[in-house]
Amino acid sequence: MADDSPIAAPGAVRSVTSLSNPTIKEIRSLALPKYRKESGLFVTEGMKLVADAVEEDWPIKILVYGAKVASHPVVRRVAVRAHARGGEVLEVSDAVLSKMTRRDNPQMVVGVFEQRLTPAASIRPSPRGVWVALEGIKDPGNLGTIIRTVDAVGAEGVILVGDTVDPFGIEAVRATMGSIFHVPLARLSVAEFAAWRKNWPGIVVGTHLSGQEDYREVPYDRPVLLLMGNEQSGIDDSFAALCDHLVKIPQAGRADSLNLAIATGVMLFEIRRTELKLA
Amino acid sequence: MADDSPIAAPGAVRSVTSLSNPTIKEIRSLALPKYRKESGLFVTEGMKLVADAVEEDWPIKILVYGAKVASHPVVRRVAVRAHARGGEVLEVSDAVLSKMTRRDNPQMVVGVFEQRLTPAASIRPSPRGVWVALEGIKDPGNLGTIIRTVDAVGAEGVILVGDTVDPFGIEAVRATMGSIFHVPLARLSVAEFAAWRKNWPGIVVGTHLSGQEDYREVPYDRPVLLLMGNEQSGIDDSFAALCDHLVKIPQAGRADSLNLAIATGVMLFEIRRTELKLA
Repeated sequence: MADDSPIAAPGAVRSVTSLSNPTIKEIRSLALPKYRKESGLFVTEGMKLVADAVEEDWPIKILVYGAKVASHPVVRRVAVRAHARGGEVLEVSDAVLSKMTRRDNPQMVVGVFEQRLTPAASIRPSPRGVWVALEGIKDPGNLGTIIRTVDAVGAEGVILVGDTVDPFGIEAVRATMGSIFHVPLARLSVAEFAAWRKNWPGIVVGTHLSGQEDYREVPYDRPVLLLMGNEQSGIDDSFAALCDHLVKIPQAGRADSLNLAIATGVMLFEIRRTELKLA
Repeated sequence: MADDSPIAAPGAVRSVTSLSNPTIKEIRSLALPKYRKESGLFVTEGMKLVADAVEEDWPIKILVYGAKVASHPVVRRVAVRAHARGGEVLEVSDAVLSKMTRRDNPQMVVGVFEQRLTPAASIRPSPRGVWVALEGIKDPGNLGTIIRTVDAVGAEGVILVGDTVDPFGIEAVRATMGSIFHVPLARLSVAEFAAWRKNWPGIVVGTHLSGQEDYREVPYDRPVLLLMGNEQSGIDDSFAALCDHLVKIPQAGRADSLNLAIATGVMLFEIRRTELKLA
C-alpha cells in the first residue's frame, strides 16, 4: 500500500469515545512497569515521533489519534501504514486522549510499539564503535537523555546492567526525543555482563571517583565500551575491575557533583573528540 | 550560640501534628509560582542540603523536621542555628511531612529559605571567569542540572534571560543537588540583558544551529559569557547578534538533537578544558 493512498478501507479505523474501551484501558495500563513487562509493549507520544518510528518500520501495534487531527496528512499516512502492518487504528475524542495519557493537554498522536532489546550475543561493535554500559541507573530522565546523547554522538548502543530503570517507561521514552527508535538497547544481569565483557574486542573505560587517569589523556583505542555507574554511588569495585582504564573528570567544586547524564555526555564527546566533524 | 550547644530554649521548637497548621499550609503553597513570587521564599528538601545551606548562612525562615529524626545530631545543630538566626523551627509528624511535600516518602528535613538574585549591576566576572546566560529556558530539570554543572566546572554564575522557568521551583531546586546555594543567579529581561551585555568585559559565545565555528576551535579568551538558547528553538537572531562567536557542536545523527543541559555541559567543559586539573 503506497504512502499516499487514501485512508484504509472502511472498518480499518475505529472511532472511540468511551473511556472504558478495553484498548484504551490497555494503553493506560502501560504506564505501569508490570504491564510493560507482561506485554512487551511501550507507548510513544507525539505526531512526529510516532510518524518517524512507523516510517522506519518499527512494529506498531496500536495507533491512536485525536479526531481533531484526523485529516492531517501525516496522520493519514501513518494510519495507512499502521493498518497495513496489522496495527489497530483508533480515532478518539480529546477526553479519551487525556484519560489515556493522564495529561490535561495530551499529544494528539499516540503509538504503542513492540519493545526491542538486543541479545548479548548480538552486540557487535563496529571497528570504530562506541558503546555505553550503565550499571544500576535509576532515573528515567537521565536514561532517556543518555540514549539521546548516544544517538547524537554517533555511538552504537546502550547496555543496561543489573537493576536499572525501564527504558520503555514513558518518562525515559520522552527524554529520548525519538532516539529510543534509533539506539540499540540491551539488558544484562551483572553476571551476564561480566561474562560478555570477556569477549569485548576493544578497551573498557570506566569513570570512577578514585580514577587516576585524566579523561582527556586516555588513548581511546577502538572499539570503546564506556562504563558508567549509578547516580548514587558510581561504579563499584567489582565493575571497576572490569575496566582497562579508570578515569576521572576533574571538577572545580565539591567532589563528584556532576549529574550522570552530563558526565556521560562529556565522556562521549571526549571519546569522539577527534572524529566528529562540523557539517 | 555554638554549633554544639543543646537544643534551643524551651518554646523555640513547636511540635505540629495538624495538617491545617498555617505554617505547613504556607510551605505547601510554595509549590505554586505565584506564592514563591509573592513571598520571595523557596523550599529545599533533605537533611544534607538544608544543613549545608544553614552552615553557609543562607537566611533560613522555617525549618521543619520529622519527629523521628529529632535527636539526630545534624538536625539538632541545624535547629539551633536556624533558631539563632530568627527562623521558625517545627517538629512534625510523618503525615504532616507527606502532606506538606506532596510525597509518599518525604524527606525528613525541609527548609524554607529566602530567594537570592544578583542584580545586573553586581555581575562582576573575575578576570578568568565564566558565566552562563540562558534565554527562555523552560524545563526545570534542565535548569537545575545546568546550575549544578556550573558549580562543578567552577563557572561563576547563571543569568536567566527573558521568560524562563523559575529556578526556585521545587523540581529545579532538586536538580541542582544543593548548587542553588552556591551559584549566583540573575534574572534579566531581554532588553536589560542586551543593555548589560554592552559592558561585558570579555567575549560572548553562543551555540547556534547555523554556527560556523567548531566549538573545539574557539580561543576562549576570558572572561567568557556562554549564551544558550531554549529547548525548542535555540538562540534566535537578535541574541545571535549579541555574540562574538557562534559555535556549533558537531553531531553524528540528526541535527541539533542534544538536550540543552548536555550541550551546556559539553560547552562548559570545553571552555575550561585547559584549566581543570585532576586532584
